[in-house]
Amino acid sequence: MTTKPLVLGVLGGMGPAATLAYLARVQALTPAERDQDHIRVIADINPQAPDRNVPGSGAGEVLAEMAGALAGAGAQVLAMPCNTAHAHAGLIQRASGLPLIDMIGLGAAAAAGTGARRAGVLGTKGAIRLYREYLAARAMGLVVLPAEAQEAFMATIYKIKAGDTGEEVRAEMRAHAEALRAEGAEVLVAGCTEVPLVMGPRDTRLELVDPGELLARKSVAVCLGWEAKPAIS
Amino acid sequence: MTTKPLVLGVLGGMGPAATLAYLARVQALTPAERDQDHIRVIADINPQAPDRNVPGSGAGEVLAEMAGALAGAGAQVLAMPCNTAHAHAGLIQRASGLPLIDMIGLGAAAAAGTGARRAGVLGTKGAIRLYREYLAARAMGLVVLPAEAQEAFMATIYKIKAGDTGEEVRAEMRAHAEALRAEGAEVLVAGCTEVPLVMGPRDTRLELVDPGELLARKSVAVCLGWEAKPAIS
Repeated sequence: MTTKPLVLGVLGGMGPAATLAYLARVQALTPAERDQDHIRVIADINPQAPDRNVPGSGAGEVLAEMAGALAGAGAQVLAMPCNTAHAHAGLIQRASGLPLIDMIGLGAAAAAGTGARRAGVLGTKGAIRLYREYLAARAMGLVVLPAEAQEAFMATIYKIKAGDTGEEVRAEMRAHAEALRAEGAEVLVAGCTEVPLVMGPRDTRLELVDPGELLARKSVAVCLGWEAKPAIS
Repeated sequence: MTTKPLVLGVLGGMGPAATLAYLARVQALTPAERDQDHIRVIADINPQAPDRNVPGSGAGEVLAEMAGALAGAGAQVLAMPCNTAHAHAGLIQRASGLPLIDMIGLGAAAAAGTGARRAGVLGTKGAIRLYREYLAARAMGLVVLPAEAQEAFMATIYKIKAGDTGEEVRAEMRAHAEALRAEGAEVLVAGCTEVPLVMGPRDTRLELVDPGELLARKSVAVCLGWEAKPAIS
Protein backbone atom coordinates (compact mmCIF):
# COMPACT_ATOMS: atom_id res chain seq x y z
CA MET A 1 0.00 0.00 0.00
CA THR A 2 1.39 3.34 -0.99
CA THR A 3 -1.24 5.79 0.32
CA LYS A 4 -0.77 7.07 3.83
CA PRO A 5 -3.35 5.72 6.30
CA LEU A 6 -5.94 8.22 7.52
CA VAL A 7 -5.47 9.54 11.06
CA LEU A 8 -8.26 8.24 13.29
CA GLY A 9 -9.72 10.57 15.90
CA VAL A 10 -11.44 8.86 18.83
CA LEU A 11 -14.01 10.48 21.08
CA GLY A 12 -13.51 8.28 24.10
CA GLY A 13 -13.88 7.86 27.81
CA MET A 14 -17.53 6.82 27.76
CA GLY A 15 -16.53 4.67 29.53
CA PRO A 16 -12.75 4.57 29.68
CA ALA A 17 -12.42 0.77 29.79
CA ALA A 18 -14.63 0.42 26.71
CA THR A 19 -12.39 2.89 24.88
CA LEU A 20 -9.27 0.84 25.62
CA ALA A 21 -11.06 -2.33 24.49
CA TYR A 22 -11.90 -0.54 21.23
CA LEU A 23 -8.31 0.71 20.76
CA ALA A 24 -6.95 -2.79 21.42
CA ARG A 25 -9.30 -4.18 18.77
CA VAL A 26 -8.19 -1.58 16.24
CA GLN A 27 -4.57 -2.62 16.85
CA ALA A 28 -5.36 -6.34 16.71
CA LEU A 29 -7.27 -5.94 13.44
CA THR A 30 -4.45 -4.00 11.74
CA PRO A 31 -2.03 -6.14 9.72
CA ALA A 32 1.31 -4.96 11.10
CA GLU A 33 4.85 -6.25 11.09
CA ARG A 34 6.29 -3.14 12.76
CA ASP A 35 5.16 -0.05 14.66
CA GLN A 36 4.93 2.03 11.48
CA ASP A 37 2.31 -0.30 9.95
CA HIS A 38 -0.21 0.68 12.63
CA ILE A 39 -2.81 3.42 12.28
CA ARG A 40 -2.18 6.75 13.98
CA VAL A 41 -4.92 7.32 16.53
CA ILE A 42 -5.52 10.56 18.39
CA ALA A 43 -7.83 9.70 21.27
CA ASP A 44 -9.47 12.08 23.68
CA ILE A 45 -10.35 9.73 26.53
CA ASN A 46 -12.55 12.15 28.41
CA PRO A 47 -14.42 10.44 31.23
CA GLN A 48 -15.41 13.90 32.46
CA ALA A 49 -17.82 14.23 29.54
CA PRO A 50 -21.19 14.79 31.21
CA ASP A 51 -23.26 11.66 31.77
CA ARG A 52 -24.92 10.81 28.45
CA ASN A 53 -27.85 9.37 30.40
CA VAL A 54 -28.74 12.62 32.15
CA PRO A 55 -30.91 14.90 29.96
CA GLY A 56 -29.63 18.46 29.66
CA SER A 57 -26.19 17.48 30.94
CA GLY A 58 -24.47 19.34 28.11
CA ALA A 59 -22.73 16.25 26.76
CA GLY A 60 -23.30 17.35 23.16
CA GLU A 61 -21.43 20.64 23.53
CA VAL A 62 -18.48 18.88 25.23
CA LEU A 63 -18.34 16.24 22.49
CA ALA A 64 -18.47 18.92 19.79
CA GLU A 65 -15.54 20.73 21.41
CA MET A 66 -13.56 17.49 21.68
CA ALA A 67 -14.25 16.71 18.02
CA GLY A 68 -13.09 20.16 16.93
CA ALA A 69 -9.85 19.76 18.90
CA LEU A 70 -9.25 16.32 17.37
CA ALA A 71 -9.65 17.82 13.90
CA GLY A 72 -7.20 20.55 14.87
CA ALA A 73 -4.71 17.95 16.06
CA GLY A 74 -4.82 16.19 12.70
CA ALA A 75 -7.63 13.62 12.85
CA GLN A 76 -9.19 12.89 9.44
CA VAL A 77 -12.08 10.63 10.40
CA LEU A 78 -13.81 10.15 13.76
CA ALA A 79 -15.03 7.15 15.74
CA MET A 80 -16.82 7.15 19.10
CA PRO A 81 -17.06 3.86 21.00
CA CYS A 82 -20.21 4.86 22.90
CA ASN A 83 -23.65 4.04 21.49
CA THR A 84 -25.62 6.54 23.60
CA ALA A 85 -23.42 9.49 22.62
CA HIS A 86 -24.33 8.94 18.96
CA ALA A 87 -27.40 11.07 19.70
CA HIS A 88 -24.93 13.94 19.20
CA ALA A 89 -23.48 12.62 15.91
CA GLY A 90 -24.76 15.56 13.87
CA LEU A 91 -23.33 18.16 16.22
CA ILE A 92 -19.97 16.36 16.36
CA GLN A 93 -19.69 16.28 12.57
CA ARG A 94 -20.75 19.90 12.10
CA ALA A 95 -18.32 21.09 14.78
CA SER A 96 -15.34 19.19 13.39
CA GLY A 97 -16.06 19.06 9.68
CA LEU A 98 -15.14 15.36 9.88
CA PRO A 99 -17.28 12.28 9.25
CA LEU A 100 -18.13 10.12 12.27
CA ILE A 101 -18.22 6.40 11.53
CA ASP A 102 -21.79 5.45 12.44
CA MET A 103 -21.71 2.74 15.11
CA ILE A 104 -25.50 2.53 15.37
CA GLY A 105 -25.82 2.05 11.62
CA LEU A 106 -23.24 -0.74 11.72
CA GLY A 107 -25.07 -2.50 14.56
CA ALA A 108 -28.48 -2.20 12.90
CA ALA A 109 -27.16 -3.43 9.53
CA ALA A 110 -25.52 -6.44 11.16
CA ALA A 111 -28.71 -7.27 13.07
CA ALA A 112 -30.69 -7.09 9.83
CA GLY A 113 -28.05 -9.19 8.10
CA THR A 114 -28.78 -12.14 10.39
CA GLY A 115 -32.26 -12.47 8.90
CA ALA A 116 -33.91 -11.90 12.28
CA ARG A 117 -37.11 -9.86 12.37
CA ARG A 118 -36.91 -8.66 15.96
CA ALA A 119 -33.70 -7.39 17.56
CA GLY A 120 -33.23 -7.22 21.31
CA VAL A 121 -31.08 -4.27 22.32
CA LEU A 122 -29.21 -4.08 25.60
CA GLY A 123 -28.55 -0.38 25.95
CA THR A 124 -29.39 2.84 27.69
CA LYS A 125 -32.72 4.51 26.96
CA GLY A 126 -30.87 6.93 24.68
CA ALA A 127 -29.19 4.15 22.72
CA ILE A 128 -32.48 2.24 22.43
CA ARG A 129 -34.10 5.35 20.94
CA LEU A 130 -31.38 5.41 18.25
CA TYR A 131 -31.62 1.70 17.49
CA ARG A 132 -35.44 1.88 17.32
CA GLU A 133 -35.16 4.41 14.49
CA TYR A 134 -32.39 2.56 12.60
CA LEU A 135 -34.10 -0.84 12.94
CA ALA A 136 -37.46 0.57 11.84
CA ALA A 137 -35.75 1.86 8.69
CA ARG A 138 -34.86 -1.77 7.99
CA ALA A 139 -38.39 -2.95 8.83
CA MET A 140 -37.12 -4.68 11.93
CA GLY A 141 -38.85 -4.80 15.28
CA LEU A 142 -37.17 -3.81 18.52
CA VAL A 143 -37.40 -5.78 21.75
CA VAL A 144 -36.49 -4.01 24.97
CA LEU A 145 -36.48 -4.96 28.62
CA PRO A 146 -39.54 -4.25 30.77
CA ALA A 147 -39.09 -1.01 32.76
CA GLU A 148 -37.96 -2.68 35.98
CA ALA A 149 -35.47 -4.95 34.20
CA GLN A 150 -34.15 -1.92 32.27
CA GLU A 151 -33.36 -0.26 35.61
CA ALA A 152 -31.60 -3.44 36.77
CA PHE A 153 -29.64 -3.43 33.48
CA MET A 154 -28.45 0.14 34.12
CA ALA A 155 -27.36 -0.91 37.63
CA THR A 156 -25.27 -3.66 36.01
CA ILE A 157 -23.73 -1.12 33.60
CA TYR A 158 -22.74 1.20 36.45
CA LYS A 159 -21.11 -1.75 38.27
CA ILE A 160 -18.98 -2.40 35.17
CA LYS A 161 -18.08 1.29 35.00
CA ALA A 162 -16.96 1.01 38.65
CA GLY A 163 -14.51 -1.70 37.54
CA ASP A 164 -16.52 -4.79 38.50
CA THR A 165 -16.38 -7.40 35.73
CA GLY A 166 -16.70 -10.40 38.04
CA GLU A 167 -18.86 -13.50 37.72
CA GLU A 168 -21.85 -11.96 39.50
CA VAL A 169 -21.99 -9.08 37.05
CA ARG A 170 -21.54 -11.52 34.15
CA ALA A 171 -24.46 -13.58 35.42
CA GLU A 172 -26.60 -10.43 35.62
CA MET A 173 -25.78 -9.61 31.99
CA ARG A 174 -26.63 -13.15 30.87
CA ALA A 175 -29.98 -12.80 32.64
CA HIS A 176 -30.71 -9.51 30.88
CA ALA A 177 -29.96 -11.18 27.52
CA GLU A 178 -32.15 -14.13 28.39
CA ALA A 179 -34.99 -11.77 29.34
CA LEU A 180 -34.83 -10.22 25.86
CA ARG A 181 -34.93 -13.67 24.29
CA ALA A 182 -37.99 -14.50 26.39
CA GLU A 183 -39.61 -11.29 25.11
CA GLY A 184 -39.17 -12.47 21.55
CA ALA A 185 -35.75 -11.15 20.47
CA GLU A 186 -34.23 -13.20 17.63
CA VAL A 187 -30.83 -11.47 17.66
CA LEU A 188 -29.04 -9.60 20.46
CA VAL A 189 -27.39 -6.20 19.97
CA ALA A 190 -24.80 -5.21 22.59
CA GLY A 191 -26.02 -1.63 22.40
CA CYS A 192 -23.79 -0.33 25.18
CA THR A 193 -19.99 -0.60 24.99
CA GLU A 194 -19.85 -1.95 28.55
CA VAL A 195 -21.87 -5.06 27.59
CA PRO A 196 -19.09 -6.90 25.71
CA LEU A 197 -16.72 -6.26 28.63
CA VAL A 198 -18.66 -8.97 30.51
CA MET A 199 -20.39 -10.96 27.77
CA GLY A 200 -19.17 -12.87 24.73
CA PRO A 201 -20.94 -14.82 21.98
CA ARG A 202 -20.96 -17.98 24.11
CA ASP A 203 -22.79 -16.30 26.97
CA THR A 204 -26.10 -16.07 25.13
CA ARG A 205 -28.26 -18.39 23.05
CA LEU A 206 -28.96 -15.51 20.64
CA GLU A 207 -26.56 -14.43 17.95
CA LEU A 208 -24.62 -11.51 19.43
CA VAL A 209 -24.01 -8.35 17.40
CA ASP A 210 -21.23 -6.22 18.90
CA PRO A 211 -21.31 -2.72 17.38
CA GLY A 212 -18.01 -1.89 19.16
CA GLU A 213 -16.25 -4.67 17.29
CA LEU A 214 -17.90 -3.62 14.03
CA LEU A 215 -16.79 -0.04 14.67
CA ALA A 216 -13.18 -1.20 15.17
CA ARG A 217 -13.29 -3.22 11.92
CA LYS A 218 -14.78 -0.34 9.97
CA SER A 219 -12.26 2.12 11.48
CA VAL A 220 -9.34 -0.01 10.30
CA ALA A 221 -10.90 -0.53 6.86
CA VAL A 222 -11.52 3.20 6.36
CA CYS A 223 -8.12 4.33 7.68
CA LEU A 224 -6.21 1.80 5.58
CA GLY A 225 -8.19 2.69 2.45
CA TRP A 226 -9.92 -0.68 2.10
CA GLU A 227 -13.25 1.13 2.26
CA ALA A 228 -14.19 4.67 1.29
CA LYS A 229 -14.23 7.34 3.95
CA PRO A 230 -17.90 7.89 4.84
CA ALA A 231 -19.58 11.18 3.99
CA ILE A 232 -20.66 13.55 6.73
CA SER A 233 -24.26 12.60 7.48
CA MET B 1 -11.26 15.93 46.22
CA THR B 2 -12.49 19.29 44.97
CA THR B 3 -9.76 20.30 42.51
CA LYS B 4 -10.20 19.20 38.94
CA PRO B 5 -7.71 16.53 37.83
CA LEU B 6 -5.04 17.65 35.38
CA VAL B 7 -5.47 16.56 31.78
CA LEU B 8 -2.78 14.05 30.84
CA GLY B 9 -1.24 14.25 27.38
CA VAL B 10 0.34 11.04 26.11
CA LEU B 11 2.95 10.83 23.38
CA GLY B 12 2.30 7.26 22.32
CA GLY B 13 2.58 4.66 19.64
CA MET B 14 6.19 3.70 20.37
CA GLY B 15 5.09 0.97 20.23
CA PRO B 16 1.29 0.97 20.12
CA ALA B 17 0.78 -2.09 22.34
CA ALA B 18 3.02 -0.59 25.04
CA THR B 19 0.92 2.59 24.95
CA LEU B 20 -2.28 0.64 25.56
CA ALA B 21 -0.63 -1.26 28.43
CA TYR B 22 0.34 2.11 29.93
CA LEU B 23 -3.18 3.54 29.49
CA ALA B 24 -4.70 0.43 31.07
CA ARG B 25 -2.38 0.84 34.05
CA VAL B 26 -3.34 4.48 34.46
CA GLN B 27 -7.00 3.44 34.57
CA ALA B 28 -6.38 0.55 36.94
CA LEU B 29 -4.40 2.78 39.32
CA THR B 30 -7.11 5.48 39.44
CA PRO B 31 -9.59 5.11 42.31
CA ALA B 32 -12.90 5.36 40.45
CA GLU B 33 -16.50 4.50 41.18
CA ARG B 34 -17.83 6.02 37.97
CA ASP B 35 -16.59 7.24 34.58
CA GLN B 36 -16.22 10.82 35.83
CA ASP B 37 -13.68 9.80 38.50
CA HIS B 38 -11.16 8.83 35.81
CA ILE B 39 -8.44 11.09 34.47
CA ARG B 40 -8.93 12.73 31.11
CA VAL B 41 -6.20 11.50 28.77
CA ILE B 42 -5.49 12.91 25.33
CA ALA B 43 -3.27 10.37 23.62
CA ASP B 44 -1.57 10.71 20.28
CA ILE B 45 -0.84 7.08 19.46
CA ASN B 46 1.44 7.76 16.52
CA PRO B 47 3.19 4.61 15.34
CA GLN B 48 4.32 6.55 12.28
CA ALA B 49 6.78 8.49 14.43
CA PRO B 50 10.13 7.77 12.78
CA ASP B 51 12.07 4.86 14.27
CA ARG B 52 13.75 6.14 17.44
CA ASN B 53 16.59 3.70 16.82
CA VAL B 54 17.59 5.16 13.47
CA PRO B 55 19.88 8.19 13.86
CA GLY B 56 18.78 11.24 11.90
CA SER B 57 15.26 9.86 11.45
CA GLY B 58 13.67 13.12 12.55
CA ALA B 59 11.82 11.57 15.47
CA GLY B 60 12.52 14.61 17.66
CA GLU B 61 10.76 17.05 15.35
CA VAL B 62 7.73 14.77 15.02
CA LEU B 63 7.51 14.34 18.80
CA ALA B 64 7.80 18.10 19.32
CA GLU B 65 4.93 18.69 16.89
CA MET B 66 2.80 16.04 18.62
CA ALA B 67 3.51 17.62 22.01
CA GLY B 68 2.52 21.05 20.76
CA ALA B 69 -0.76 19.69 19.38
CA LEU B 70 -1.49 17.92 22.69
CA ALA B 71 -0.97 21.21 24.53
CA GLY B 72 -3.31 22.90 22.06
CA ALA B 73 -5.94 20.22 22.67
CA GLY B 74 -5.84 20.87 26.43
CA ALA B 75 -3.15 18.61 27.91
CA GLN B 76 -1.57 20.03 31.09
CA VAL B 77 1.20 17.53 31.73
CA LEU B 78 2.85 15.03 29.38
CA ALA B 79 3.90 11.41 29.65
CA MET B 80 5.63 9.28 27.00
CA PRO B 81 5.69 5.50 27.50
CA CYS B 82 8.86 5.00 25.42
CA ASN B 83 12.28 5.05 27.08
CA THR B 84 14.31 5.66 23.94
CA ALA B 85 12.27 8.69 22.88
CA HIS B 86 13.22 10.44 26.13
CA ALA B 87 16.36 11.55 24.31
CA HIS B 88 14.03 14.24 22.92
CA ALA B 89 12.58 15.26 26.31
CA GLY B 90 14.02 18.77 26.16
CA LEU B 91 12.67 19.48 22.67
CA ILE B 92 9.24 18.10 23.63
CA GLN B 93 9.01 20.36 26.68
CA ARG B 94 10.22 23.47 24.85
CA ALA B 95 7.82 22.87 21.97
CA SER B 96 4.77 22.34 24.19
CA GLY B 97 5.55 24.48 27.22
CA LEU B 98 4.46 21.46 29.30
CA PRO B 99 6.47 19.31 31.71
CA LEU B 100 7.17 15.73 30.63
CA ILE B 101 7.11 13.22 33.50
CA ASP B 102 10.61 11.75 33.38
CA MET B 103 10.37 7.99 32.93
CA ILE B 104 14.14 7.49 32.90
CA GLY B 105 14.51 9.37 36.17
CA LEU B 106 11.79 7.22 37.76
CA GLY B 107 13.51 4.02 36.61
CA ALA B 108 16.95 5.10 37.78
CA ALA B 109 15.62 6.24 41.17
CA ALA B 110 13.84 2.94 41.71
CA ALA B 111 16.94 0.97 40.73
CA ALA B 112 18.99 2.99 43.23
CA GLY B 113 16.29 2.50 45.86
CA THR B 114 16.84 -1.25 45.82
CA GLY B 115 20.34 -0.77 47.25
CA ALA B 116 21.94 -2.43 44.25
CA ARG B 117 25.22 -1.01 42.98
CA ARG B 118 25.01 -2.26 39.40
CA ALA B 119 21.85 -2.07 37.31
CA GLY B 120 21.33 -4.18 34.24
CA VAL B 121 19.31 -2.38 31.61
CA LEU B 122 17.40 -4.15 28.85
CA GLY B 123 16.90 -1.39 26.33
CA THR B 124 17.84 0.06 22.98
CA LYS B 125 21.25 1.68 22.59
CA GLY B 126 19.58 5.08 22.91
CA ALA B 127 17.80 4.14 26.13
CA ILE B 128 20.99 2.64 27.57
CA ARG B 129 22.77 5.95 26.90
CA LEU B 130 20.10 7.76 28.94
CA TYR B 131 20.19 5.25 31.81
CA ARG B 132 24.00 5.34 31.88
CA GLU B 133 23.87 9.07 32.59
CA TYR B 134 21.06 8.88 35.16
CA LEU B 135 22.59 5.91 36.99
CA ALA B 136 26.03 7.54 37.07
CA ALA B 137 24.44 10.56 38.76
CA ARG B 138 23.40 8.15 41.51
CA ALA B 139 26.87 6.55 41.61
CA MET B 140 25.47 3.36 40.18
CA GLY B 141 27.12 1.15 37.63
CA LEU B 142 25.46 0.02 34.41
CA VAL B 143 25.54 -3.51 33.06
CA VAL B 144 24.67 -4.03 29.42
CA LEU B 145 24.56 -6.99 27.09
CA PRO B 146 27.62 -7.88 24.99
CA ALA B 147 27.29 -6.50 21.43
CA GLU B 148 26.02 -9.71 19.88
CA ALA B 149 23.49 -10.34 22.64
CA GLN B 150 22.32 -6.71 22.32
CA GLU B 151 21.55 -7.39 18.65
CA ALA B 152 19.65 -10.51 19.63
CA PHE B 153 17.73 -8.45 22.21
CA MET B 154 16.69 -5.96 19.52
CA ALA B 155 15.52 -8.85 17.35
CA THR B 156 13.33 -9.96 20.27
CA ILE B 157 11.93 -6.42 20.61
CA TYR B 158 11.01 -6.26 16.94
CA LYS B 159 9.22 -9.62 17.26
CA ILE B 160 7.11 -8.17 20.09
CA LYS B 161 6.37 -5.09 17.97
CA ALA B 162 5.19 -7.47 15.22
CA GLY B 163 2.67 -8.86 17.72
CA ASP B 164 4.49 -11.99 18.85
CA THR B 165 4.29 -12.37 22.64
CA GLY B 166 4.42 -16.16 22.64
CA GLU B 167 6.44 -18.52 24.81
CA GLU B 168 9.47 -18.52 22.49
CA VAL B 169 9.79 -14.75 22.71
CA ARG B 170 9.28 -14.89 26.48
CA ALA B 171 12.08 -17.44 26.76
CA GLU B 172 14.35 -15.17 24.73
CA MET B 173 13.63 -12.27 27.08
CA ARG B 174 14.32 -14.43 30.15
CA ALA B 175 17.65 -15.38 28.58
CA HIS B 176 18.57 -11.72 27.99
CA ALA B 177 17.80 -10.96 31.65
CA GLU B 178 19.82 -13.94 32.80
CA ALA B 179 22.75 -12.77 30.66
CA LEU B 180 22.71 -9.41 32.45
CA ARG B 181 22.70 -11.21 35.80
CA ALA B 182 25.68 -13.28 34.68
CA GLU B 183 27.45 -10.03 33.77
CA GLY B 184 27.00 -8.76 37.32
CA ALA B 185 23.68 -6.92 37.33
CA GLU B 186 22.10 -6.74 40.80
CA VAL B 187 18.80 -5.25 39.67
CA LEU B 188 17.05 -5.38 36.30
CA VAL B 189 15.57 -2.32 34.59
CA ALA B 190 12.98 -3.02 31.88
CA GLY B 191 14.37 -0.12 29.86
CA CYS B 192 12.15 -0.67 26.83
CA THR B 193 8.35 -0.60 27.09
CA GLU B 194 8.10 -3.82 25.08
CA VAL B 195 10.00 -5.79 27.76
CA PRO B 196 7.15 -5.98 30.33
CA LEU B 197 4.77 -7.14 27.60
CA VAL B 198 6.56 -10.52 27.79
CA MET B 199 8.26 -10.50 31.20
CA GLY B 200 6.98 -10.14 34.75
CA PRO B 201 8.70 -10.09 38.14
CA ARG B 202 8.54 -13.88 38.39
CA ASP B 203 10.40 -14.37 35.11
CA THR B 204 13.74 -13.21 36.49
CA ARG B 205 15.84 -13.90 39.59
CA LEU B 206 16.68 -10.18 39.74
CA GLU B 207 14.39 -7.57 41.20
CA LEU B 208 12.55 -6.07 38.22
CA VAL B 209 12.14 -2.31 37.90
CA ASP B 210 9.43 -1.41 35.36
CA PRO B 211 9.70 2.29 34.44
CA GLY B 212 6.42 2.02 32.48
CA GLU B 213 4.57 1.02 35.63
CA LEU B 214 6.30 3.78 37.60
CA LEU B 215 5.34 6.27 34.89
CA ALA B 216 1.69 5.21 35.15
CA ARG B 217 1.75 5.58 38.96
CA LYS B 218 3.38 9.00 38.78
CA SER B 219 0.98 10.13 36.05
CA VAL B 220 -2.02 9.29 38.23
CA ALA B 221 -0.43 10.91 41.31
CA VAL B 222 0.36 14.14 39.45
CA CYS B 223 -3.01 14.38 37.66
CA LEU B 224 -5.00 13.74 40.85
CA GLY B 225 -2.92 16.27 42.80
CA TRP B 226 -1.35 13.72 45.18
CA GLU B 227 2.06 14.91 43.98
CA ALA B 228 3.15 18.28 42.62
CA LYS B 229 3.27 18.76 38.88
CA PRO B 230 6.95 18.50 37.89
CA ALA B 231 8.79 21.54 36.60
CA ILE B 232 9.93 21.70 32.99
CA SER B 233 13.46 20.32 33.01
